[in-house]
Amino acid sequence: MTSTPIADLWPNLPGADTRPEAAYRLLQAAVESFAERGFHATTTRDIATAAGMSPAALYIHYQSKAALLAEISQAGHAATLALVREAVAGGGAPAERMRRLVEQFTAWHARARTVGRVVNYELHALPEDAYAVVAALRLDIEREVSALIEEGATAGEFQVSEVRTAARAVTSLGIDVSRWYTDRSTETPEELGRRYGELVLRMLGARV
Amino acid sequence: MTSTPIADLWPNLPGADTRPEAAYRLLQAAVESFAERGFHATTTRDIATAAGMSPAALYIHYQSKAALLAEISQAGHAATLALVREAVAGGGAPAERMRRLVEQFTAWHARARTVGRVVNYELHALPEDAYAVVAALRLDIEREVSALIEEGATAGEFQVSEVRTAARAVTSLGIDVSRWYTDRSTETPEELGRRYGELVLRMLGARV
Repeated sequence: MTSTPIADLWPNLPGADTRPEAAYRLLQAAVESFAERGFHATTTRDIATAAGMSPAALYIHYQSKAALLAEISQAGHAATLALVREAVAGGGAPAERMRRLVEQFTAWHARARTVGRVVNYELHALPEDAYAVVAALRLDIEREVSALIEEGATAGEFQVSEVRTAARAVTSLGIDVSRWYTDRSTETPEELGRRYGELVLRMLGARV
Repeated sequence: MTSTPIADLWPNLPGADTRPEAAYRLLQAAVESFAERGFHATTTRDIATAAGMSPAALYIHYQSKAALLAEISQAGHAATLALVREAVAGGGAPAERMRRLVEQFTAWHARARTVGRVVNYELHALPEDAYAVVAALRLDIEREVSALIEEGATAGEFQVSEVRTAARAVTSLGIDVSRWYTDRSTETPEELGRRYGELVLRMLGARV
């Protein structure tokens, strides 16, 4: 994973199949630079150099470093929304679907932690229009999780006093994995996902 | 809070009582700049200007911007370790102490969120010796939380399969509050603390 931090991201880009390999290299370089030094301390020259290109070649693919951040952030949020939706719409009782949601969401943030950091900690640096798109995706994620908690509560599987706070705690636990998870972590992303799935079900008052 | 992001930090600085007001202004400016633009994109001139001083005046108090980051990070971690220790050593059964721990830890990260962001997201920018000090403080926090979980499990109050993962989840939930909590959040830091206290007790298998 360390060598390809955007492997989980790329399939979520519009038209990924027909994109030039240069765009892949640029996105990868941008993710690594933003995660390491922050958006503001990264120049387009840094990104182009890390991708083995000239700054002029970068501009063929992206108008600015903000355009790169926007694409990373939108694709990262689209990827997590997609797996949340898949889990919510899948088969089984609400508790079973919630378990799958947490397993997938947690494992994604462990695996794609470098992307996860950029996506979650550089929101303030997004241009206004890109921010609006990302804010809508975040709201969708929150709504999906809240709806599943409500469904479980109605079915008598969950006991929750504040649905919004509980939904926030569920997503927050997963997102923070991208901050602390490292190559030296003793649990695999999948193991961590399973353990977090267990903890979240209990948090929601499910009998596990 | 917005106007004094380091109010929760200052009392934890060595010799806070006798420090010049200029040091307070510099720390405050550093916290705000690092949180907004990141450590690498902030210059000592930015910090001095925001504190209403010349760069030369800054150097009377701090050798470098890394020295400012080191002091912020050490004081922030010392502050959270202190409140964790106070809760763990306080009276009552393990579940009651855990509830207090989570309430305090969560409320701190909501109130002191600007400091919390710098403290948790700029670790990689610390000079090596400062990093060692902070890593030891983080380990102490983790150990205190783990020990309390183990005590509760032994007393039959908690049901936990992996103490380390559970301890990580407890601190992670609190730390991530500094990422998402804003002035527009509908819950006060104390309300959020109470709700998170409830969620964590359930997560640990306590009967609440």
